[in-house]
Amino acid sequence: MGLGLRHVAVVVTCWILMLCSVFETSYGSKTRHYKWEVEYMFWSPDCKESIVMGINGQFPGPTIRARAGDTIAVELTNKLYTEGVVIHWHGIRQLGTPWADGTASISQCPINPGETYLYRFKVDKAGTYFYHGHLGMQRSAGLYGSLIVDVADGEKEPFHYDGEFNLLLSDWWHRSVHEQEVGLSSRPLRWIGEPQTLLINGRGQFNCSLAAHFSNGSAEQCKLRGNEQCAPQILHVQPNKTYRLRIASTTALASLNLAVKNHKMVVVEADGNYVQPFEVDDMDIYSGESYSVLLTTNQDPSYNYWISAGVRGRKPATPPALTLLNYHPTSASKIPLSPPPITPRWDDYDHSKSFSNKIFALMGSPKPPTNFHRRLTLLNTQNTINGFTKWAINNVSLTLPPTPYLGSIKYGLKDAFDQNGPPENFSNEYDVMKPPVNANTTLGSGVYMLGLNTTVDVILQNANAIRPNLSEIHPWHLHGHDFWVLGRGEGKFTKEDEKKFNLKNPPLKNTAVIFPYGWTALRFVADNPGAWAFHCHIEPHFHIGMGVVLALGVETVGNIPNQALACGLTGKRFMNPKQN
Amino acid sequence: MGLGLRHVAVVVTCWILMLCSVFETSYGSKTRHYKWEVEYMFWSPDCKESIVMGINGQFPGPTIRARAGDTIAVELTNKLYTEGVVIHWHGIRQLGTPWADGTASISQCPINPGETYLYRFKVDKAGTYFYHGHLGMQRSAGLYGSLIVDVADGEKEPFHYDGEFNLLLSDWWHRSVHEQEVGLSSRPLRWIGEPQTLLINGRGQFNCSLAAHFSNGSAEQCKLRGNEQCAPQILHVQPNKTYRLRIASTTALASLNLAVKNHKMVVVEADGNYVQPFEVDDMDIYSGESYSVLLTTNQDPSYNYWISAGVRGRKPATPPALTLLNYHPTSASKIPLSPPPITPRWDDYDHSKSFSNKIFALMGSPKPPTNFHRRLTLLNTQNTINGFTKWAINNVSLTLPPTPYLGSIKYGLKDAFDQNGPPENFSNEYDVMKPPVNANTTLGSGVYMLGLNTTVDVILQNANAIRPNLSEIHPWHLHGHDFWVLGRGEGKFTKEDEKKFNLKNPPLKNTAVIFPYGWTALRFVADNPGAWAFHCHIEPHFHIGMGVVLALGVETVGNIPNQALACGLTGKRFMNPKQN
Repeated sequence: MGLGLRHVAVVVTCWILMLCSVFETSYGSKTRHYKWEVEYMFWSPDCKESIVMGINGQFPGPTIRARAGDTIAVELTNKLYTEGVVIHWHGIRQLGTPWADGTASISQCPINPGETYLYRFKVDKAGTYFYHGHLGMQRSAGLYGSLIVDVADGEKEPFHYDGEFNLLLSDWWHRSVHEQEVGLSSRPLRWIGEPQTLLINGRGQFNCSLAAHFSNGSAEQCKLRGNEQCAPQILHVQPNKTYRLRIASTTALASLNLAVKNHKMVVVEADGNYVQPFEVDDMDIYSGESYSVLLTTNQDPSYNYWISAGVRGRKPATPPALTLLNYHPTSASKIPLSPPPITPRWDDYDHSKSFSNKIFALMGSPKPPTNFHRRLTLLNTQNTINGFTKWAINNVSLTLPPTPYLGSIKYGLKDAFDQNGPPENFSNEYDVMKPPVNANTTLGSGVYMLGLNTTVDVILQNANAIRPNLSEIHPWHLHGHDFWVLGRGEGKFTKEDEKKFNLKNPPLKNTAVIFPYGWTALRFVADNPGAWAFHCHIEPHFHIGMGVVLALGVETVGNIPNQALACGLTGKRFMNPKQN
Repeated sequence: MGLGLRHVAVVVTCWILMLCSVFETSYGSKTRHYKWEVEYMFWSPDCKESIVMGINGQFPGPTIRARAGDTIAVELTNKLYTEGVVIHWHGIRQLGTPWADGTASISQCPINPGETYLYRFKVDKAGTYFYHGHLGMQRSAGLYGSLIVDVADGEKEPFHYDGEFNLLLSDWWHRSVHEQEVGLSSRPLRWIGEPQTLLINGRGQFNCSLAAHFSNGSAEQCKLRGNEQCAPQILHVQPNKTYRLRIASTTALASLNLAVKNHKMVVVEADGNYVQPFEVDDMDIYSGESYSVLLTTNQDPSYNYWISAGVRGRKPATPPALTLLNYHPTSASKIPLSPPPITPRWDDYDHSKSFSNKIFALMGSPKPPTNFHRRLTLLNTQNTINGFTKWAINNVSLTLPPTPYLGSIKYGLKDAFDQNGPPENFSNEYDVMKPPVNANTTLGSGVYMLGLNTTVDVILQNANAIRPNLSEIHPWHLHGHDFWVLGRGEGKFTKEDEKKFNLKNPPLKNTAVIFPYGWTALRFVADNPGAWAFHCHIEPHFHIGMGVVLALGVETVGNIPNQALACGLTGKRFMNPKQN
């Protein structure tokens, strides 16, 4: 049997120990200290050994658990031999601490090999977050983990649950990220291809299927003892209880759909913000997003049930990730009665939109200002520049400079990046349904300088990629702020569309998707001084230019750690030893 | 046929173009400027594609050609995404420019991604040199090239030749250096194994043999058109001429033996110093060494002849590297009459010693002082520390700190490295013929502080490795200075051995080997202020601790570029922006 008795015993033990250690180290003082070391290690995320970027010998990295209002202090030591490193705390707004946002070239210099950087920041808002590398393709290399913020002491969540599970979703390639990077900067482009494996909490199975019992195909059944690094973490539940599943996606590429066989899910949180609860059979989740769903164990407890996460939005070449919902006292080795949920067709975008359209802010959530001061309309195109394939925003493909923006803006170093702001709009004539004709696309490093405390609208406009009849999904993630998702639509955004904006209960999020050939409208109040990335969260897309940089109120930012400035032009300018 | 007509034509063309461009760009002004960009690229050094660290799109990097007395100015831009980079100019003493020695953690901070560092230094002495990465295992990743210094205008070499060829030898692995690094720091150690391929000027053949015609074995013959990245560079010669072969080894691991079928070689230069000419049939060359040999084309010109380089000192699992000596007007596609030279047995150390013992300084070369001020006796052992396999010198395994020594010594930053100097000697009781018993081996970062202008002796003492009955070859390379090789012997060095030192005409070198269970005695005048690495040039050995750091006269060093100090504790100390 693939999932034997020994398997169950071991997994149960691990699970209990994990929870214990979290509780033990997490609750107590208001400042939570962590000492982390980042290094490559041999690991078998999908039963095949690779080198993986781990933290303190763990992959994924340790889970941070805190309460709203706590301060997190992570002393991050770079134990890599040749690479710099940074960590971005995805979804944490870094109010007043823009130098702790962990974005190379934007908020700080990469931490050099052997050096330690202190990330010290407040987690002001309860929710489901995660963290990940933000230099080169280090997220894809495995540098990520969960960050869970509970409500402050004495506060209550606006929903009830009896227990919870953390499902951090990712995708995994066998080709090294260094090789992937070279392919992306090659002329012609060599695309990274679809992932070999999808992972749940860093665990997947490449050469075998957990569900092979049910398959009439040729998939080989997994022979797992249960203590392998790639063995699934099984969700052990009691009957007739309600569980909170905290689901986050840190995939490099894949858009996913998650479902639990025979069980409904009630969505209650998105990107660290409460939403009006709504029930679904399955849910889409894009890279950079997080959700909490409530699942009630109201099914026949003498069976187990498959949990499945499969690829959406790209023709899948990767089998779904699987694990089990195991009802007490049924043995976890008992095979479910029915096969895993089937992921909706990859190109059934109506299904995806229907899910997105159900998300509204919980009553009582902050409402958007009714007016905006400035609107950026950002055309997303795929282009070639001198034969190199790039993604561009309004014809500019972002090239990150060696001097981080936060420092170069603060100190007025005009040589550090393009001083002309990038375009705020694109030509009215542009046909978003056709391959790009914008021959004048360039590389650029300009910044959108925003007025402090102004209200900014962003219209993300999707378009046809280079290949005819292809438009891709792009989940855009904003650093330093949440935004309201005011609306989305098909084709090119027009002034008319504005009338349909939802200003009553739009959801607050930090990541929002644009669907093929469509647009998505966002609004946010630019109230957090700093230099902030706003980019497609698909890592290889961002790597070849799919992002912009926003900056606001940088002149008011003090206390940038020297270490965050010790590279590039700020390093040159401010290094001042007295030499003979 | 493996080597067809088209092959010949193309190789000839390349060869001519290469020489042309070298001459065109090299001669002229006394300062030679280069703008280099380091990046990973797809390349097929041995007919199998990998990612390789290249410079300006070339592998190996461009050849620098200069005249003695010239200044070299290389503006090196790091185009890697996540890795730092440095380049060491191997054999160049960096008189007065210790910050240009290109050793991470010792002479400078790694150059950050996107940044440029100016290496500006004088090449004061004619000779055959090379350059390579000196951070992590970046040499192994392919970051190397040749540096040839001709005699100054109006000067003459002490020997005649009609033409010359450059043979840069290296070894190549298919496993990425990142994976190799993880293996070396794993517990238990995962050794990198023998190289897949040996390369001559960055070219080798993995899956086939150039010499398969002559093999009775199963080796497949190479089907090369001649324009492949892995096709050999053929040496096209005229009959009855004398050619200078400049042979340098930048292998990560392999000790090599080079021979040209039917041809004698007269050795005239070693490590950029003239030697008393001596004739050999074949020559050993260790990683870090360079030689010039004169070869007279006095064989039957109607044939071609194999040039072969094979592994010595480790049981070989790698086929020899091959190329051809092609006599004009014989077609390069004509197969040699006789098979390639056979590499002497890997463990025929008498053969190796016999070669080394023939090397004496050319008459008129500088002689060593007859007395020394200080003697360091350095025991080379393989050890385990907490289960990690390390190499150690007098029980200390070198761990490189994040702050480069040059800066931390100059500015007295006592927290930057161990302030206790490492041991000058080892216990008299230590049995070099047996596996190590030094249980108190530690990691360390201490420095041997030498008095400026003192004469220093170093006795490199080899010993048994961890495995019984095994002692390995280690080529030790000194930065910033040449040393005289005063002698070598078997077993443990004793006071008596001193009497046999050659003080009359010992060769000046920068790299010297210790043979299994033997010792080698070196002497040098510590007259070049700076912080200098002295280490086993086998890259994976140095990576796990096989080296020491020497420092002298650092207080007299001025003008260290700020960029060389902008990391670690010097970065912290001297970054001083005026913040609000």
